[in-house]
Amino acid sequence: MRTSQEYLEKLASMRPNVYLEGKCVGRDHPKVLHASQAIQLTFDLANDPHYEKWLKTTSHISGKPINRFCHIHQTPEDLLMKQEMTRVLCNRIGGCIQRCMGADSMNGLSVATKNADLKYGTNYHERWLKYLEYFQENDLVGAAAQTDAKGDRSKRPGEQDDPDMYLHVVERREDGVVVRGAKLHNTMAPYADEILAFPTRALGKDEKDYAIAFAIPADTEGVHLIVREAFSLERADNLSAPYTKLGDLESMTVFDNVFVPNERIFLNGETDIGGQLALLFALYHRHSYCGCKPGIGDVILGTTALLADYNGVEKTGHTRAQLAELISVAELVFAAGIAASIKSTKAPSGTMVPNVIYANVGRRHAGHHMYSEYETLCDIAGGLPATLPLSSEYNNPEIGDFVRKYTKRRTGISEENHYRAYHLASDILTGEVGAALLVAGVHGGGSPIMEDIAIMGSYDIKGKKKLAKYLAGIEED
Amino acid sequence: MRTSQEYLEKLASMRPNVYLEGKCVGRDHPKVLHASQAIQLTFDLANDPHYEKWLKTTSHISGKPINRFCHIHQTPEDLLMKQEMTRVLCNRIGGCIQRCMGADSMNGLSVATKNADLKYGTNYHERWLKYLEYFQENDLVGAAAQTDAKGDRSKRPGEQDDPDMYLHVVERREDGVVVRGAKLHNTMAPYADEILAFPTRALGKDEKDYAIAFAIPADTEGVHLIVREAFSLERADNLSAPYTKLGDLESMTVFDNVFVPNERIFLNGETDIGGQLALLFALYHRHSYCGCKPGIGDVILGTTALLADYNGVEKTGHTRAQLAELISVAELVFAAGIAASIKSTKAPSGTMVPNVIYANVGRRHAGHHMYSEYETLCDIAGGLPATLPLSSEYNNPEIGDFVRKYTKRRTGISEENHYRAYHLASDILTGEVGAALLVAGVHGGGSPIMEDIAIMGSYDIKGKKKLAKYLAGIEED
Amino acid sequence: MRTSQEYLEKLASMRPNVYLEGKCVGRDHPKVLHASQAIQLTFDLANDPHYEKWLKTTSHISGKPINRFCHIHQTPEDLLMKQEMTRVLCNRIGGCIQRCMGADSMNGLSVATKNADLKYGTNYHERWLKYLEYFQENDLVGAAAQTDAKGDRSKRPGEQDDPDMYLHVVERREDGVVVRGAKLHNTMAPYADEILAFPTRALGKDEKDYAIAFAIPADTEGVHLIVREAFSLERADNLSAPYTKLGDLESMTVFDNVFVPNERIFLNGETDIGGQLALLFALYHRHSYCGCKPGIGDVILGTTALLADYNGVEKTGHTRAQLAELISVAELVFAAGIAASIKSTKAPSGTMVPNVIYANVGRRHAGHHMYSEYETLCDIAGGLPATLPLSSEYNNPEIGDFVRKYTKRRTGISEENHYRAYHLASDILTGEVGAALLVAGVHGGGSPIMEDIAIMGSYDIKGKKKLAKYLAGIEED
Amino acid sequence: MRTSQEYLEKLASMRPNVYLEGKCVGRDHPKVLHASQAIQLTFDLANDPHYEKWLKTTSHISGKPINRFCHIHQTPEDLLMKQEMTRVLCNRIGGCIQRCMGADSMNGLSVATKNADLKYGTNYHERWLKYLEYFQENDLVGAAAQTDAKGDRSKRPGEQDDPDMYLHVVERREDGVVVRGAKLHNTMAPYADEILAFPTRALGKDEKDYAIAFAIPADTEGVHLIVREAFSLERADNLSAPYTKLGDLESMTVFDNVFVPNERIFLNGETDIGGQLALLFALYHRHSYCGCKPGIGDVILGTTALLADYNGVEKTGHTRAQLAELISVAELVFAAGIAASIKSTKAPSGTMVPNVIYANVGRRHAGHHMYSEYETLCDIAGGLPATLPLSSEYNNPEIGDFVRKYTKRRTGISEENHYRAYHLASDILTGEVGAALLVAGVHGGGSPIMEDIAIMGSYDIKGKKKLAKYLAGIEED
Repeated sequence: MRTSQEYLEKLASMRPNVYLEGKCVGRDHPKVLHASQAIQLTFDLANDPHYEKWLKTTSHISGKPINRFCHIHQTPEDLLMKQEMTRVLCNRIGGCIQRCMGADSMNGLSVATKNADLKYGTNYHERWLKYLEYFQENDLVGAAAQTDAKGDRSKRPGEQDDPDMYLHVVERREDGVVVRGAKLHNTMAPYADEILAFPTRALGKDEKDYAIAFAIPADTEGVHLIVREAFSLERADNLSAPYTKLGDLESMTVFDNVFVPNERIFLNGETDIGGQLALLFALYHRHSYCGCKPGIGDVILGTTALLADYNGVEKTGHTRAQLAELISVAELVFAAGIAASIKSTKAPSGTMVPNVIYANVGRRHAGHHMYSEYETLCDIAGGLPATLPLSSEYNNPEIGDFVRKYTKRRTGISEENHYRAYHLASDILTGEVGAALLVAGVHGGGSPIMEDIAIMGSYDIKGKKKLAKYLAGIEED
Repeated sequence: MRTSQEYLEKLASMRPNVYLEGKCVGRDHPKVLHASQAIQLTFDLANDPHYEKWLKTTSHISGKPINRFCHIHQTPEDLLMKQEMTRVLCNRIGGCIQRCMGADSMNGLSVATKNADLKYGTNYHERWLKYLEYFQENDLVGAAAQTDAKGDRSKRPGEQDDPDMYLHVVERREDGVVVRGAKLHNTMAPYADEILAFPTRALGKDEKDYAIAFAIPADTEGVHLIVREAFSLERADNLSAPYTKLGDLESMTVFDNVFVPNERIFLNGETDIGGQLALLFALYHRHSYCGCKPGIGDVILGTTALLADYNGVEKTGHTRAQLAELISVAELVFAAGIAASIKSTKAPSGTMVPNVIYANVGRRHAGHHMYSEYETLCDIAGGLPATLPLSSEYNNPEIGDFVRKYTKRRTGISEENHYRAYHLASDILTGEVGAALLVAGVHGGGSPIMEDIAIMGSYDIKGKKKLAKYLAGIEED
Repeated sequence: MRTSQEYLEKLASMRPNVYLEGKCVGRDHPKVLHASQAIQLTFDLANDPHYEKWLKTTSHISGKPINRFCHIHQTPEDLLMKQEMTRVLCNRIGGCIQRCMGADSMNGLSVATKNADLKYGTNYHERWLKYLEYFQENDLVGAAAQTDAKGDRSKRPGEQDDPDMYLHVVERREDGVVVRGAKLHNTMAPYADEILAFPTRALGKDEKDYAIAFAIPADTEGVHLIVREAFSLERADNLSAPYTKLGDLESMTVFDNVFVPNERIFLNGETDIGGQLALLFALYHRHSYCGCKPGIGDVILGTTALLADYNGVEKTGHTRAQLAELISVAELVFAAGIAASIKSTKAPSGTMVPNVIYANVGRRHAGHHMYSEYETLCDIAGGLPATLPLSSEYNNPEIGDFVRKYTKRRTGISEENHYRAYHLASDILTGEVGAALLVAGVHGGGSPIMEDIAIMGSYDIKGKKKLAKYLAGIEED
Repeated sequence: MRTSQEYLEKLASMRPNVYLEGKCVGRDHPKVLHASQAIQLTFDLANDPHYEKWLKTTSHISGKPINRFCHIHQTPEDLLMKQEMTRVLCNRIGGCIQRCMGADSMNGLSVATKNADLKYGTNYHERWLKYLEYFQENDLVGAAAQTDAKGDRSKRPGEQDDPDMYLHVVERREDGVVVRGAKLHNTMAPYADEILAFPTRALGKDEKDYAIAFAIPADTEGVHLIVREAFSLERADNLSAPYTKLGDLESMTVFDNVFVPNERIFLNGETDIGGQLALLFALYHRHSYCGCKPGIGDVILGTTALLADYNGVEKTGHTRAQLAELISVAELVFAAGIAASIKSTKAPSGTMVPNVIYANVGRRHAGHHMYSEYETLCDIAGGLPATLPLSSEYNNPEIGDFVRKYTKRRTGISEENHYRAYHLASDILTGEVGAALLVAGVHGGGSPIMEDIAIMGSYDIKGKKKLAKYLAGIEED
């Protein structure tokens, strides 16, 4: 298991292909380093006595200790532990822990490669197992590259005017394939070791070129990581706080005729399994959301409760009703994740697959409430998060005292603590990283309407209509 | 294990103390018999091959087969099975299965009697175990009598102008106590064998007379069951449908100087345990709601989907979004029940106690969505449930043909089936029993605000504030 | 202007064609009389000093005093007064005042007949003016017959397997036409003088037979009024209360080859004007809803506030938030009606036409909140509305005292008043007429989705996109 | 009437007392100039043929043409025009037009000064009329300074440990008073000519020092404007778009022993009128919100519709339902403003005062829906607003083509237009100024709970309870 130092050293050694602030930069750029702090935590805490019960586990292939982010779930308990781990880590960083991307991709691949082999006599699963060995051995960080540019939403991949709107094979060689296209919304790709690419949707039989899944180093020739950044509001040093560690780099990952060698190809032309894999990653990722969203909910709840406390309104009926609602959102989502874990089923590959309905109703509930959670914090915090002078004024010797004096509220709480608490709310509600988390909370791992589609595709609605017919005294039509 | 025939024969033999339609009637009154059909089902299906896996279990005290409604939960699996049983039975009757009242009371008593003995050296648990033996042996139906009249809500039990506003001991004798007061909202008391009475709230140290719990036959001298009835819309015979079996009798149960013998007293003056018992029943009952509310949700979902189908709008985005929402409500509540079962803890008595937070967020979510579930059915059904001519017109030879002709919609579905489907919606949305279920769905087992109180009383809000402080860089105040 | 006595005498003299409780009955049947009390009020209060400012106005054709329900709106002030009148009358009866049906139909016809004449050179407006003279002179009550049976919703009127699914002309004669079909959801048709029939939707050019509008006496040969009834919960005499006057008869109005003479035909084959008339009635009726729904909201608000008062929770934050929400719903809807009145436009006929957007957003808001208003009342009232013993028990000399004693709450309020207040809540929440009002509140005058369609059809969305383009710096595409 | 050039020249000449980015800067600082563009528009458009009907009006004191932002409302029509003006200007700038602050303050002062004179025989109104003359003559921009720091919310102004928590008089002189304290959330104070200060809440009789209202130049000695800034996401020049003009500077305005001369004091010790004035400004400002919030809603609606169009989902049921909801929110709020204008009443000063209930339910509805409006835009826009590479990458010659290629969607719309539309959504959803508008949309002019208080304080709840009693047959208690 690596240290965060080793992780950073590897990043620094990679070919510069990250585009940021109008330039191509190396992975030792301060903003890349800053954003990578969430990932660094996953290494640092793996040996922390408080956290290792979640972060450290045993490889089912090597029997060696590995980071749970590299693990393939073998039991319902594994799924429960992943869910809990995600929550506690999101608590610690104050936002998205990001590294689940790779874990969810690998678990999806474990199932899909086996299913492909069983149906088509291919040997993807063996290839993938070798890759897994390498992945666990080197404690790698994988970025998921799923969502294609998609172009015209009313047309299928094969119908687009520009075939690159979906990542696809443009050349087939003896030793591998060449791919072209772009994947959007790739969280933390600029500070991942590997990129794990796979289809974003169901495919038609004539769309074989789009049924491609693979893993490559993130600095492979032809890969461009075009970055959108989001960070917390600037604070001067003497106000540094753990929340300021939170940053996010999102990548538009361009594959400009990228060669993928055979041993890194995990699907190639099996269109039905391609669609299955798309759903599997989504399913694992929605199960992860049943852990991370409650974790982010904890942050919102805690901040809301803290401000209510500092404002002296914590005991009012209005505030208590709001807090109870925040708790209910977080715990219903977490409960759905527990139910999805407990009611999981074993795939032919031996991997546990979370229950589709529970994982989806959980993720859906989270997505439908992100804005209302922020609204609650906003409601209790009042207008100050939008108007609080920033640390440049707080630290200005001429008028800093005024800032301190006039943001103070309750006796017994220091001026600095009042200011810090409001700054945290300000970061969440009006900072760029808070806003990015909000949008991600709605759309990450599938927009709410995608969960509706997953639910409607799996639920036994016919059985419920039969029930209604029985009660109404209707013989089958 | 009894048959429903034996259950009815016992009812018929009881002292008439049921007040209905202005008269005191026996338990063989047609409306009592009708309403008791839900309970009858719990006997009939205990030997049905499809249902017995849920309904039949083994007594942990006698080792004999018993009805699960008489069982004390020994494992998380027991809690899961109770939850499932409740859902499938609510499906079968189309509404509230009612008998959980007794099960939840008995489980609450199992824990509280033991806790009292441990703290006060009393022997309530032994007494209660004897009663349990009798209860299981005779496969009894128990009604819970918890909610007191309460009088002025701003005053405690001991502060009321009229002390009878809360059930209390008015005389203490060698062989037992005499109690007076009334319990409201007692579902199915008019067709229960026994009444299980216990406190409705936390009590002060000086309110010993109110800390009383006991079980007595429902026809005990001095007990008056004053009934409010609710049934489905009348249908002529040739339209009889299983849903018409659904009926409800609610009792205002008056204890007019009722004697309770010592062997039936399970708490007597231990005020702190009294409050604990009040919460325990509520907790078990809220866990039951995590099973029954999804079961009623199934009925609403099925009816909505059936009408959408008959109306030809089942595939529209509007309808699919509505159905996905109905599914999500039901399955989130069920998931919360699963989580409450899995995360249950063992009490000193050996009984499993569901997790407080999950049981409460589940019940709360159900209560907050009853009206919106009905609204969805109403939305998809259109205005017809409120204007559909009833079966007296449907069966009128002069104009029945018009009723049939003009309620038909899709080709391929018979006129009768259209009519039956709309009649079911009409029953749910505009019939008295549908309305009663709606109110019960909000308030039964605790109003939404009671769940807020339970959640706020148990949740680690302090820990969440600590998290916010950590992220903001605040040292403890 | 008639008295209610004269109105009832006329009803009694009509041909029996009302089907109720399995029989064909006269309009002197007690249930018809009971339900007609809302209409009776509109006569009785027209000469009441407090109400006449709303109910009495001057005919713009005869200059004589007339009931406002017979008036054609000439000014924005007329629309405002109609809206206010509707609210105060709904307050007085405690529910739907019903007679607006005729007023809204006549105003729609005033506009459409003129428009037809201007486009097609017909003389419908003159015919209709003569009818208006007769209508005002005799102070008539008109029932609107708009919604057809509609059969398969995916097919147009002319495509139905059974052509009768939409009311249509089956024979054209020198002196008139013969029509067949049925109109559903016809509130108060069993106690109206006249039936005003017109299309329910837009029509294709080849659907001329469906473009028919007319007025005929409600007892015309071939007309069958098949009735669904809804009343308050039964109360014994000594508890009689104004709310018990509320009742509702809904009619499925069958036209079984009914002859309509020429002078009563107001549209006949002009398909485009048929669609226009459908929308016009809906528009006037939605504007009426901007008056009646706040009026019903007042009843719910008042009952909620009264119970909160009796329960001693009126001053809590929880209750105050709920009351503020009830007020906001009612007053936003009313405000939308005011805006629709103020921004009304004059049609070629001289009639004022309410603003489409405001009338629709108002009605839509009302429809989207009916269930939540009831939910609020339910929340504050607690479970008692579903379990309150009815007056047969309240009046039972054996146990009535218990009912009274145990429903009492606050000192200073009599037992009877507590009981009456809860009985009112019980009537609203669990009685049939309350349930009928709830469904009507969602669907009457157009289901919420119909308002969406009206809004989307009229709103300048293109202009708003242009605004976004301007702000984004986008030249027109 | 001034030009924007004259307005800027005056700003440049003012004493530097604006604190920004850690320094004290002049009002010619680029960020001040940028943020002032909203105000500049109010001068520029006053002579624009399209806008002058709203912006230009006639002074009721001088008879000269003035900017409506300097006008005192004399008729309901004036209130309607202000509401419309606010909406069209918010459309034009894409956000808050800001200058209403002064208008609403001056109208509030017009009423309160007269009321004080009538009650106390003072001559504030005359003083204020002179100031109004000067204000109109010089076409001034006034910033409202109302919300005090408030300290401990559970204590009244006079009970605070630090008396400066509310702005108060610390010295009374022959020629004026000296005041100390701070006002928070002062939008656009850094680019206003004048600061208009007045109480934030009701005051006790012993809080005379807090009952102070006045107007002073914004650069008066002792005034410090401590600034929090919020701007749109950076764009390179070749992407400049009108939306980028939107910026916001919020001021914590510190009054550090500031002298106010007698002629600028409009209230001084009349505590009851102080509370009245606090409510009056809030009332006028909530009425303004009934114009501006629909204007901002137009921007969100337009952007949502534009993206739905570009995404090819504009015609789906899901999107249409979302658009209808956005329209309804905006138009209900606007309708409430119309109703508040039409039902306004004339104060003794001759000023029209909007109806309290309608202005408050309108503002409340707006505040309760800000987050859901953003959520809708987020839902339709997908994840791209959070992950879109910014213009530094768009303009990077190496990879800009990739950004353009992979954000394109529909054929027929240019790559640039797709990018611009998404950039606008990104600005709104994830930019600082968008976030600031969101918080302001909830809290500006009074948080939602303040509207509840205003509504509950004015509404005739007693009358509604009386109605319920009448219907229930209850004689007055």
